[in-house]
Amino acid sequence: MEQTDIDTPPPPPLLKPGRGRRRAEDVRQAALAATSALLFEEGIRGVTFEKVAGRAGVSKMTLYKWWSTPGRLAFEAYFSALEETLAFPDTGDLRADLTTQLHALVGLFQRSGATIAQIVGAAQSEPELIEALSNQYVRRRRQLAVDRLTAAREAGQLRPGADLDAIVDQLWGACYHRLMLPALPEHPVDTAFADALIANLFGGIAA
Amino acid sequence: MEQTDIDTPPPPPLLKPGRGRRRAEDVRQAALAATSALLFEEGIRGVTFEKVAGRAGVSKMTLYKWWSTPGRLAFEAYFSALEETLAFPDTGDLRADLTTQLHALVGLFQRSGATIAQIVGAAQSEPELIEALSNQYVRRRRQLAVDRLTAAREAGQLRPGADLDAIVDQLWGACYHRLMLPALPEHPVDTAFADALIANLFGGIAA
Repeated sequence: MEQTDIDTPPPPPLLKPGRGRRRAEDVRQAALAATSALLFEEGIRGVTFEKVAGRAGVSKMTLYKWWSTPGRLAFEAYFSALEETLAFPDTGDLRADLTTQLHALVGLFQRSGATIAQIVGAAQSEPELIEALSNQYVRRRRQLAVDRLTAAREAGQLRPGADLDAIVDQLWGACYHRLMLPALPEHPVDTAFADALIANLFGGIAA
Repeated sequence: MEQTDIDTPPPPPLLKPGRGRRRAEDVRQAALAATSALLFEEGIRGVTFEKVAGRAGVSKMTLYKWWSTPGRLAFEAYFSALEETLAFPDTGDLRADLTTQLHALVGLFQRSGATIAQIVGAAQSEPELIEALSNQYVRRRRQLAVDRLTAAREAGQLRPGADLDAIVDQLWGACYHRLMLPALPEHPVDTAFADALIANLFGGIAA
């Protein structure tokens, strides 16, 4: 794509030698990677078109064409960063797989919880961002989880009457609750908490 | 307190006749009531010292002395508004009481969910506000819930091994999750959802 801004820095190593223009997809990925790095280093306020352009070696004009605001760019970078971390295992043992998955989520929150909370928080006042959050993240994560839960129910590992959609809120959602409505240090988001969520839900709390 | 700003409107009906000055507590309550009304009418961005001063009939200087930013004022108004709505019943039947309480929460979210999400969201980027959220709301609500759950466990209504703190995240927290990471209209926060949360947790989900 164009690199016409006068403030564009020298081509970074990402630019393939011998080619005058980078492929659009390369530029996109470079922009997302630079944004993701900024996001986790400096938080959502660290993401400006200026900084991303400098770091990724792309023009601000290009960024602006693809993402109407730095907020949208931050969101997309966030989603692609999360994609890999939260893959859903299927070993055939639901409880073990949920434990693996929630421990991964808790680990992510321990490393990058503040940034994640800022991203989700910032979306609450911007309809466009909450829509992106729903479509690019929430619906996809819920679907992956419910698919796995449905398979487990068919394999006889879940009570037939259990509400699978509500399980998502009672495991993943419970972690987001402690992240965004915190009472620290008494109530951390750690693996012991993840295990307690699973134990409460699998065993039930009634006497 | 002082009403010295030149832009102070005529004294509102709240001002007791025959007294030149309102008691500090009256002024405080008037400011909180005005803020709460603005908050639920216009969202968090509607809360400015200018508007609150005009509506409550107090000076901007007075507001500024008590609350360093409109954000802090909005927060305190939010907490006092929530206080009444979310009283915790104790009829001796835990499951019935949790149902009553969660239905009230869900009702509040249906009426004012957007504002609540904005308030919690805005706190994520401001350490001072997240601290206020923890101290003035989260810790107190958790304590009320855990006290009630502890009494129920002593009355033999809960499994001895159940993690009471995690229950809070799996009921109230699950509702906040759907509010702030929404997938609408498929996954509403309604009384059917509240009932599903309680059924999953009481009965357990294991086959």
